[in-house]
Amino acid sequence: MDRAEVAYRAGVSARGRFVSLEGGEGVGKSTQLRALGSALRDQGLEVIETREPGGSEGAEAIRALLLEGDERRWTIEAEALLFAAARADHVDKTIRPALERGAWVLSDRFIDSSLAYQGAAGGIGVERIRAINDFAIGGFLPDRTLVLTLSEGRARASARDGDSADRIGGRPEAFHDAVHRAFERLAAQEPERVRLVDASGDKVAVTERLLAELSDLLP
Amino acid sequence: MDRAEVAYRAGVSARGRFVSLEGGEGVGKSTQLRALGSALRDQGLEVIETREPGGSEGAEAIRALLLEGDERRWTIEAEALLFAAARADHVDKTIRPALERGAWVLSDRFIDSSLAYQGAAGGIGVERIRAINDFAIGGFLPDRTLVLTLSEGRARASARDGDSADRIGGRPEAFHDAVHRAFERLAAQEPERVRLVDASGDKVAVTERLLAELSDLLP
Repeated sequence: MDRAEVAYRAGVSARGRFVSLEGGEGVGKSTQLRALGSALRDQGLEVIETREPGGSEGAEAIRALLLEGDERRWTIEAEALLFAAARADHVDKTIRPALERGAWVLSDRFIDSSLAYQGAAGGIGVERIRAINDFAIGGFLPDRTLVLTLSEGRARASARDGDSADRIGGRPEAFHDAVHRAFERLAAQEPERVRLVDASGDKVAVTERLLAELSDLLP
Repeated sequence: MDRAEVAYRAGVSARGRFVSLEGGEGVGKSTQLRALGSALRDQGLEVIETREPGGSEGAEAIRALLLEGDERRWTIEAEALLFAAARADHVDKTIRPALERGAWVLSDRFIDSSLAYQGAAGGIGVERIRAINDFAIGGFLPDRTLVLTLSEGRARASARDGDSADRIGGRPEAFHDAVHRAFERLAAQEPERVRLVDASGDKVAVTERLLAELSDLLP
């Protein structure tokens, strides 16, 4: 099912919606995903919470390959291909079946993480990463992508407080800046799909900002 | 190291040669790979025998993912991406290091199997498979690819005799014909690299035919 088909089906059936949450380290993505799931369930919707890499049996097996071993176990190209293979399985086995039965799917990261981390900050190039993802999932995209953003200093401090300090310790500041700028460019290129959401302040207020960006998709 | 660099290095150092063996099921590929390895060692060369999918620690882990589970565990796109990821690792960890120290590398299958099986016979398209492999290994190709060919009837009979009957039992004849024609087209498109070699008759005679196709590469 390509994107046009998805759009078509959305018009003729009670198809669910696919929402991805994105953002740099330490912005509270996981917490907000759970809060958003609860808020949508309170509106009577069936909601699936999932994550990348992973989210299906095959994709979780690939995730294990990606996370075990040392930093240089894989070339950057092999790593990008494994992420794309995992995504193909995630869409085929988990996301599409859920959407087709009318559920909403919330994913902690999706294609935009590959574009920002590997394509832009990692130096492979955004268009090359997009090409292997087009191969993997044939243009399938989220109905909406919410990018949680914090000012640089805040996100760093929050990450150091423990949220995901293990993954970012060794990476230079310039890498995080490149990720942040990549998300901003994606939002500028696809304003209908990709929305930047201020992740600062009270958690409940952040969840409300996220819900507001989904209002046109709600039944 | 891209292909131009490989060619350049071949001219200025004692770089080894990379030879892949290809062909349909039941043509005696594994037997001939061992015989060819012995013959090249008899000429004083260091020879590495390897295979795909696999040939390095990471690629063997991916091979396990590809071979376990049922036929429909992976989408055809996920499968193709996993093959390409394994190939990237195989080249990076096993093939290039061996070539750089002057060894010859003989691989049971390489990129042309992906082009013929998944691209042509599997219906993904040869150019789409070539694109993800270009992503994976950046145009790196064997110095020579030897395609063992048998008339259709002979290969089927040979396969049924046990060589690889487990892998081809359920596949229709048309699939094998498509693989065979794809190898013929690859040989026509790249006559310098890809050579068709008659695999019929005495095993020693077949090995001699293979060696003859490598004569210009030998020291």
